[in-house]
Amino acid sequence: MEVKYLLKDQRDKLQIFALGGLDEIGKNMYVVQYGNDIVVIDSGLMFPEVDMLGIDIVIPDVSYLVEHQSKVRGIIITHGHEDHIGALPYILRRINVPIYATQLTMGLVEHKLREAHILNDVKRTVIHKRSQITLGALKATFFRTNHSIPDAVGVCIDTPEGAVVHTGDFKFDMTPVNEETADMHRMAEIGRKGVLCLLSDSTNAERPGFTGSEKSVGESLIEVFRQSKQRVIVATFASNIHRVQQVVDASVRYGRKLAVVGRSMINVVNIASELGYLKVPDDLIIELDDINRLPAHKVAIISTGSQGEPMSALTRMANASHRKVEILPGDTVVIAATPIPGNEKAIGRTVDQLFRIGANVVYSANAHVHVSGHGSQEDLKLMLNLMKPKYFMPIHGEYRMLRAHAQLAESVGVRPENIFICDNGDTVEIFGGRARYGPKHYTGKVLIDGLGVGDVGNIVLRDRKLLSQDGILVVVVTLSKANGTILSGPDIISRGFVYVRESEKLLEDANKVVSLTMEKCMKDQVNEWASYKTNIRDALSKFLFEKTRRRPMILPIIMEV
Amino acid sequence: MEVKYLLKDQRDKLQIFALGGLDEIGKNMYVVQYGNDIVVIDSGLMFPEVDMLGIDIVIPDVSYLVEHQSKVRGIIITHGHEDHIGALPYILRRINVPIYATQLTMGLVEHKLREAHILNDVKRTVIHKRSQITLGALKATFFRTNHSIPDAVGVCIDTPEGAVVHTGDFKFDMTPVNEETADMHRMAEIGRKGVLCLLSDSTNAERPGFTGSEKSVGESLIEVFRQSKQRVIVATFASNIHRVQQVVDASVRYGRKLAVVGRSMINVVNIASELGYLKVPDDLIIELDDINRLPAHKVAIISTGSQGEPMSALTRMANASHRKVEILPGDTVVIAATPIPGNEKAIGRTVDQLFRIGANVVYSANAHVHVSGHGSQEDLKLMLNLMKPKYFMPIHGEYRMLRAHAQLAESVGVRPENIFICDNGDTVEIFGGRARYGPKHYTGKVLIDGLGVGDVGNIVLRDRKLLSQDGILVVVVTLSKANGTILSGPDIISRGFVYVRESEKLLEDANKVVSLTMEKCMKDQVNEWASYKTNIRDALSKFLFEKTRRRPMILPIIMEV
Repeated sequence: MEVKYLLKDQRDKLQIFALGGLDEIGKNMYVVQYGNDIVVIDSGLMFPEVDMLGIDIVIPDVSYLVEHQSKVRGIIITHGHEDHIGALPYILRRINVPIYATQLTMGLVEHKLREAHILNDVKRTVIHKRSQITLGALKATFFRTNHSIPDAVGVCIDTPEGAVVHTGDFKFDMTPVNEETADMHRMAEIGRKGVLCLLSDSTNAERPGFTGSEKSVGESLIEVFRQSKQRVIVATFASNIHRVQQVVDASVRYGRKLAVVGRSMINVVNIASELGYLKVPDDLIIELDDINRLPAHKVAIISTGSQGEPMSALTRMANASHRKVEILPGDTVVIAATPIPGNEKAIGRTVDQLFRIGANVVYSANAHVHVSGHGSQEDLKLMLNLMKPKYFMPIHGEYRMLRAHAQLAESVGVRPENIFICDNGDTVEIFGGRARYGPKHYTGKVLIDGLGVGDVGNIVLRDRKLLSQDGILVVVVTLSKANGTILSGPDIISRGFVYVRESEKLLEDANKVVSLTMEKCMKDQVNEWASYKTNIRDALSKFLFEKTRRRPMILPIIMEV
Repeated sequence: MEVKYLLKDQRDKLQIFALGGLDEIGKNMYVVQYGNDIVVIDSGLMFPEVDMLGIDIVIPDVSYLVEHQSKVRGIIITHGHEDHIGALPYILRRINVPIYATQLTMGLVEHKLREAHILNDVKRTVIHKRSQITLGALKATFFRTNHSIPDAVGVCIDTPEGAVVHTGDFKFDMTPVNEETADMHRMAEIGRKGVLCLLSDSTNAERPGFTGSEKSVGESLIEVFRQSKQRVIVATFASNIHRVQQVVDASVRYGRKLAVVGRSMINVVNIASELGYLKVPDDLIIELDDINRLPAHKVAIISTGSQGEPMSALTRMANASHRKVEILPGDTVVIAATPIPGNEKAIGRTVDQLFRIGANVVYSANAHVHVSGHGSQEDLKLMLNLMKPKYFMPIHGEYRMLRAHAQLAESVGVRPENIFICDNGDTVEIFGGRARYGPKHYTGKVLIDGLGVGDVGNIVLRDRKLLSQDGILVVVVTLSKANGTILSGPDIISRGFVYVRESEKLLEDANKVVSLTMEKCMKDQVNEWASYKTNIRDALSKFLFEKTRRRPMILPIIMEV
């Protein structure tokens, strides 16, 4: 009896871990497992790091879920941002499990699955604030939060060990736009009943104070609309429906018609309007083709491109290469966003271009046109105090953010030994009310390049890096199979190294180096092509480095006939 | 007589223009020309933009100076930062003209020229605050400013048309470290006598308020030293001697020995100590090899790497790959700098690594450990009010900064029509006290890659960009000269495209596409290799895009024997 009891206990530990989202911003995917029941929270993508050349997006490695497929009861999605839903099309092709999400989030997920042609294969359940979802031994309920997209929720998962709460991305907005405030009453109730472990958003854990209200951005927008005598163009994140709503409201208030520009903006505005998250008067929206029929002071435009993305609508307008919108001197352009780290230069260039055209540019350096969707230190402490968790696991952030969040937790009374700063794959195991680090699960990054999922790895990236720095020299020579004499070549072809026209002498000399090396190889009776190639590569590399201080990739090719 | 008079007038206009530094941060080089006398101010480099793959540095195109070499009376250097002196070794090889600089600046310039083996070829004059330099019809005097390097000056150039003032990089530091405050009395005197045209530093023209005093950073450093129980490691810009001085002072105060790490830090500390700009007690500095012989609380280290540069000392310490310094849990690391735009991610990674090791990391997000060297809006207005220029030309900044500076000038009373926001090469011509835009002079960017100066242009960069995204496929085939039959190949070699091992089928199919294309070419009696190659490239490109949604560079090579 006792042995059996122990076995059962070992099986039914509670495990909490991340397959993505820790020590990074992006590809969020958290797992709560109790015995044979697995619940996944979110399934996001990450944009590639600068050294991931040519990569389009990065998703979590879900080998663990594939291996335990039969145990996965479902994926709960906290909100509709790409870093929470973007990996779904890839992951649902590998494991077909039910999806749970609020209405708007599901609308955005469905759009994505439709584009991937797998919509009809996936079981989907729309949840609302009173939903209770049974997932094996686990039960999920939800609480409304405020974030930079409507319909965001946190999740409370009741387990036999106690409640595990995942906040999703959140802030406390005391004057939200077009939605209710975060459901503090429900959070208080969850906290009162007792939270075993809290997983909370760490994005802004380094920022003091409270994050500002979305409404404060609306006040700036209204001021801009009030003062503008020509067109007003507002660029912002398409998914920030609250901000889009404020542009809609300002347009109505100042008698302007509104045109919508940019694929993702059109898409999100459509979905959000259909589902009632965006309230747009019937006659407000006009086609882009019609903006020139109205006087400039009767037109507003909402657009993508707030991050200076090269192909976005705003960037094309700034470069005077947009097919339908020409920005004129005196027009006002609002960039209602702050730069995501890495995008500062691109946004700077866009602002410069707009100023050059003569536009009034309203942006983060000269106006209050953005607030974050993530809670700052005081928001995070409020969450911690409402939930009063026994154990705490900061999530959704790079290491220093997780660490700053851990310090906040300590400051409000969570015991330091009860705080788990984890890496992706690290498990927190809770058994009999006591938590400790468990075994590490396999995880990683899957790089997506075009249609290839995971077929680009370190060697390919290293080659791309090399090629990007100094280009490539291809050395081709045809030898006689019979006696090893050179029948043709050596020919040297350069790409991304030097201009051939301006470096004829250098390439001629390089050719001589190759010829001499081959002669030497023949004299030394080198028999293997591999050695031939190594000798050519080494000699040429040395020669070119001496002459140019560059190290192009050298690719010797020997053809035999 | 009248004709002759007109001719003389035309010759002796005053021209002011930039060969670098406008609409960019970097490669500063400004020119004041009166008739046959040219004075150049600064000669800086710029670090490459992200799309300049493989490029080491960028310098101004000085064709104009080479063409008018006989008129160039000298180059005045305002201070010793790379964006003001870094192009000197390249430019002095093309035009040998005298250099004028203050003592420390000259020390740094000489180090650079010595490394380039041209020190003895260049005539050098050290200037001080009372210096008057006659440069043809032009006369230069100087005024001390505060900046993030000692011995920075502004320049007043007296011309027959009036005084042209160039501020250099500056802020007003009311409590500077180890130097005097900016020479406001001299500035006031210049202003009282009348300034025809002011050229002023626009870097922080978007920032409200006054820039903080360097001394305020010292207060934070002292607090860090006071609290630290183990080693203190401070990373900052090597050239910020004031800050280095404060680290020296804190080390002395708390009884720590100081080790200096990083090539540029050692170099600058040596030059600045020799010239008396850095006051270091005799027994303070210890060799890095000796740090382990002292207890941890007796050691401080000053290091490079405050921008997360991959090969820098701090980055290697953070990655536990520094040969001599191992950071231990409980050590304190101060990153006394803010990220230069573009470096945020690299610095973030360094901070993360240091936290992981268990260090206390003191950085911009959690402490006041940096102030800018450039004046904010109130500093800039103070300068404008002291100088009271008739004409104003904002310099040293991207377009939006120049524009913000122009607005500041307007706000203190400069007439809008007297403000010239220029591009590099645009000239402001002043004649008879009246300014207008003159002819545009040729200028541009010269890219330096290894030993190559200007040999990498748009085509090479475009190829590097292509190669970096999807790699390259080389297709080689050997044909018979006699009858055009294939003797060997087609062989396909891939680099940076896909793993060959995991994509055998794809490459086999690609091979078939090439063979079929060649057969078709033969059947169609295509005679030119160029057409052969185009056909192969097109067919393979189409095939690969369909299969992978990638567009590798395709390089067909046909060998004939």
